[in-house]
Amino acid sequence: MAAQRITLYSAKICPWAHRLALKESGLSYKRFEIDLQNKPEWYAPKVNPASKVPAIAYGGPDTEPENPSPESTKIAESYVLLEFIADLVQSSKPLLPATPVGRAQARFFIETATSKFVTPWQSSVFKGDDPSGVLPAIDAIQDLLPPQGGYAVGNDWTIADAAITPFLARALVTFKHDIGAYDEGQGKKVWELLQTDDKYARFRKYYADVTSRQSFKETFFEDIIVDGFSKRFGEARAARKAASAS
Amino acid sequence: MAAQRITLYSAKICPWAHRLALKESGLSYKRFEIDLQNKPEWYAPKVNPASKVPAIAYGGPDTEPENPSPESTKIAESYVLLEFIADLVQSSKPLLPATPVGRAQARFFIETATSKFVTPWQSSVFKGDDPSGVLPAIDAIQDLLPPQGGYAVGNDWTIADAAITPFLARALVTFKHDIGAYDEGQGKKVWELLQTDDKYARFRKYYADVTSRQSFKETFFEDIIVDGFSKRFGEARAARKAASAS
Repeated sequence: MAAQRITLYSAKICPWAHRLALKESGLSYKRFEIDLQNKPEWYAPKVNPASKVPAIAYGGPDTEPENPSPESTKIAESYVLLEFIADLVQSSKPLLPATPVGRAQARFFIETATSKFVTPWQSSVFKGDDPSGVLPAIDAIQDLLPPQGGYAVGNDWTIADAAITPFLARALVTFKHDIGAYDEGQGKKVWELLQTDDKYARFRKYYADVTSRQSFKETFFEDIIVDGFSKRFGEARAARKAASAS
Repeated sequence: MAAQRITLYSAKICPWAHRLALKESGLSYKRFEIDLQNKPEWYAPKVNPASKVPAIAYGGPDTEPENPSPESTKIAESYVLLEFIADLVQSSKPLLPATPVGRAQARFFIETATSKFVTPWQSSVFKGDDPSGVLPAIDAIQDLLPPQGGYAVGNDWTIADAAITPFLARALVTFKHDIGAYDEGQGKKVWELLQTDDKYARFRKYYADVTSRQSFKETFFEDIIVDGFSKRFGEARAARKAASAS
């Protein structure tokens, strides 16, 4: 089967959109940045009725991303896209283990890491909950990692790593810069703990491994994340402070 | 590869545990009922640390379900198990479409139907929200169904049907019997609408198709669901009534 055209609709700030599998797949694709604060009018009707990123237009003739062909298949939901890309390159570049048990372990890692990590991180930066709420999720991730080293489910990078890396990276950047609706200093404290405590040695090694890959370095824009999140969550912190002072 | 032993830990009342793919797969397995109100002490340490159903013990020597071998692989999370079973029988009994696009459509159906339907149904029966909150989810499911008939993503039954059928069936039974924390009569009203309104003709056809399968009829225990849910949610309704009267 000849390779089909792929257009990825994405946003640099968004962790769901940054799930990396397409970059690692070796498939060629066009990328189109969607401004989440000011979405183009054509995006929902022509690409994703839910108006979220990421989404992919797959197949059909070559068109401008702003004007995707009705002949291309539009696919949305980041987890669905991880599996879709893994299916597309199953023989050329395996992004999931080969055995049913290995594949189940990868999917269990995605389910566990995503469901445990995303909510406490978001509730700290968005709502002001103590960022140390992410620590049980990091414990759970550490417990699933192969103790001797390697990626989420073994020696090979898989969509399990793709799924969680963008969230870990955004969390660590927000905590390092103390960005969030939480009380001043709380983010930095969690960041320092994660950098220095022996308990998190395996996590640090894993984080270094996943973030040193070329696919991550080419697609992670720390400045954009710091700027975007500072503005948004700085206002949330100020609002919380004002509310507690009144 | 010789077939490995499979033990399924399940509970008749639980929709997550009733996701049907194992029954449809043609694989042979032992089934062990977990009493969710009174879980056996060995279940968390020996099978699923999260102490939830469903879970599977896969491989290893023949043992009693109460005493699973450390040599078997324990796999949990209902979605992970759907994909696992589909992987096991990929060539003998396809439970997902063959093409990457078809597989993506099945996974998108699972994601959309589950995320839209489960919360409003549960919040009606558990918390007393108006059960008509499920109607937008039913609209969304109808919009995804092939208009001319067939299963979730085509002529063949897939894990997309496995994922949502147990929730639809429990919702329709609770509404038909007006079981839930919501106000008396609200459930029956939604049930009647779904039985009679032309708008829901495609949904009715789909529901008849999925629930007339042998796999469903052999694994759906309406009496147990009516009894269990009546007790639990009858108390919740009485508590809501008492709270609003005081």
